[in-house]
Amino acid sequence: MLIVQKYGGTSVGDTERIKRVARRIAKTYDQGHRVVVVVSAMTGQTDRLIELAHKVSKVPDPRELDALLATGEQASAALLTMALKDMGYNATSLLAFQARIITDNAFGRARIDKIDSPILQEEIERGNIVVVAGFQGIDSHGNITTLGRGGSDTTAVALAAALKADLCEIYTDVEGVFTADPKICPDAIKIPRISYDEMMEMASLGAKVLQIRCVEFAKKYNVPVHVRSSFSEVEGTMVVKEEPEMERVIVAAVTCDKNEARITITRVPDRPGIAAQIFKPIGEVGIVVDMIIQNTSAEGLTDVTFTVPKADFHQAMEISRSVASKIGAERVLGDEHIAKVSIVGVGMKSHSGVAAKMFSTLAKEGINILMISTSEIKISCVVDEKVAERATKVLHDAFILNKA
Amino acid sequence: MLIVQKYGGTSVGDTERIKRVARRIAKTYDQGHRVVVVVSAMTGQTDRLIELAHKVSKVPDPRELDALLATGEQASAALLTMALKDMGYNATSLLAFQARIITDNAFGRARIDKIDSPILQEEIERGNIVVVAGFQGIDSHGNITTLGRGGSDTTAVALAAALKADLCEIYTDVEGVFTADPKICPDAIKIPRISYDEMMEMASLGAKVLQIRCVEFAKKYNVPVHVRSSFSEVEGTMVVKEEPEMERVIVAAVTCDKNEARITITRVPDRPGIAAQIFKPIGEVGIVVDMIIQNTSAEGLTDVTFTVPKADFHQAMEISRSVASKIGAERVLGDEHIAKVSIVGVGMKSHSGVAAKMFSTLAKEGINILMISTSEIKISCVVDEKVAERATKVLHDAFILNKA
Repeated sequence: MLIVQKYGGTSVGDTERIKRVARRIAKTYDQGHRVVVVVSAMTGQTDRLIELAHKVSKVPDPRELDALLATGEQASAALLTMALKDMGYNATSLLAFQARIITDNAFGRARIDKIDSPILQEEIERGNIVVVAGFQGIDSHGNITTLGRGGSDTTAVALAAALKADLCEIYTDVEGVFTADPKICPDAIKIPRISYDEMMEMASLGAKVLQIRCVEFAKKYNVPVHVRSSFSEVEGTMVVKEEPEMERVIVAAVTCDKNEARITITRVPDRPGIAAQIFKPIGEVGIVVDMIIQNTSAEGLTDVTFTVPKADFHQAMEISRSVASKIGAERVLGDEHIAKVSIVGVGMKSHSGVAAKMFSTLAKEGINILMISTSEIKISCVVDEKVAERATKVLHDAFILNKA
Repeated sequence: MLIVQKYGGTSVGDTERIKRVARRIAKTYDQGHRVVVVVSAMTGQTDRLIELAHKVSKVPDPRELDALLATGEQASAALLTMALKDMGYNATSLLAFQARIITDNAFGRARIDKIDSPILQEEIERGNIVVVAGFQGIDSHGNITTLGRGGSDTTAVALAAALKADLCEIYTDVEGVFTADPKICPDAIKIPRISYDEMMEMASLGAKVLQIRCVEFAKKYNVPVHVRSSFSEVEGTMVVKEEPEMERVIVAAVTCDKNEARITITRVPDRPGIAAQIFKPIGEVGIVVDMIIQNTSAEGLTDVTFTVPKADFHQAMEISRSVASKIGAERVLGDEHIAKVSIVGVGMKSHSGVAAKMFSTLAKEGINILMISTSEIKISCVVDEKVAERATKVLHDAFILNKA
């Protein structure tokens, strides 16, 4: 098999761990597989570099920041390759400009356009272990770019797609994808197999194990992804194309996302084009609005409520206030203390009554639902932050542990 | 003018110093010059990376070590460029693969073959300040290489040559080239102008201010080099083509090199080919022999004495012992406690009696000369390490301070 293995920052956190990862890679190689490795920067290194940049410039130039950050993965790729060579294995490190990981020129959040590397293919065919620096790319002018948080996962899946690898293993510090965050629900269960769509919903709902762009890539190119721990040999979670039996599990997981804030503009004149007037200026500054609710109109006036990432809350409030006064709305209310609790499962598509059961489960606990949004395979409820973990637990009990 | 400025590791030792260097560059730019900057890694960074590499592998793979070390200059180039952009200047960093600094593939001590960068030219023509990462190159396969200790100086001079720059300024932590090491001779004088040949001799005799390869390059392409301090505005030393008036100064400088050790093989059978038998195996392991002295033969036997870098002393002793027993020599004597004291000056070419004055000056102080070697523009005496600094001082007094 041709296997792409990705090791995150904690897996290569110090030189001892780097040597352990090298032994793990060697073991896979000795089993007769061809191995391509993608590696992140050592834990904390990216943050240290960002701090350094901010000491030099309050708003560091994006091109230069990417050139700076790319050194983190360059160093860990070189160190890991040294460790492999020290053990007697033929290995070689490749940086983005060498592996020709071509991206657009959106510094700090570049997207991979193509991977087009004769060197990479040659090295694999020669039987060498190839260690690719994750997170980085080059644009068509040869500028160094980075892919944003979790970018190394995307590098791994993109490489697996480009090389038509049989498997992409994402090594991390958790044992796989769980039915809920084990810190909130200690009796959460590891999910052996999950569909790309479910995984994408979970990623967008705050499950941190995989980045949504990496899963999108995996789905698009049908790359089987194995999420597993670099600290144990236990099987993790396979993220794969939807399989018929997956629908039998109605709810695959419960998620809890405390990373959003809510804004309400009250008594908005209810006329065509008003939503555009509100959301255009917010979108223009790059703020991603998640849920939007507009109440039925009374007396030609309506309330518009929406959620934004907590980090963008203050900017979004400012814009909303200025829009509100422009369109003649009454006022703007903000609430940073909310959380979004969701249930996710491809089985929902073919089962009715799931939403009703969710609402009644929360109601029985006296938990007030502030907003609701649904997709084909998930239902999200916004609740007060204070009751979010309790909500997660009772939903996990109701849908996962006592599904009968 | 087109000026290439090189800033060493202490000049960019922390973020405050990086900002100060940025202001210095900006000042040159504001005076109407076009500026290309070459920057070293922040002080200590290269040593930290080497230490990390040795934790992973006792003998780190040379290719991977170079990829690792190159991150040091990549980071400082990005940070310095950020600082310049933060001040409102158009600046861009270029790494070796972007500036196309093409070297051979001798990892760790690569030599620059050519610099062939349309990007570099374009950026300069656009009026941008270009910050090039020093010390690094790429070979013809796109592997990252490094140029060895002091490599950033060579990068700067090579860039100045390739760009036909008017001047190459080497900013360092000393104010220029002195007539002797001021730590040994507190009354040493800064030399305003010195010839390439003298500077090369001084570099090979242990003066650390410029690396010999950088001066070779400057001489070959006739690049005027200004060695000066990044911590003051004072003029430093110009290293230039030999000028007629330089010959009037007979001795330009006195150097003291404590970095060699002496080996003597006694009672060597004096027959043709014996020197080759001794020095071939030493050369084969990469040890550079400096001085060689062979006494006149008596009874068909001779003593052979030579010096090697202190770091290679033990290996050279071992090889010498094995050679000695093979050729039937008596024994091998070693001495690590020697120093080489030298006087350098292009004026020696046209003046006689310089050597005699040197020997008598040392004799008057009761300093015993162990070995002598000469070139057209220098005379070196090996003396006991204990008297080396005194020897340096009396020679400095005799030839520099009291030339009359």
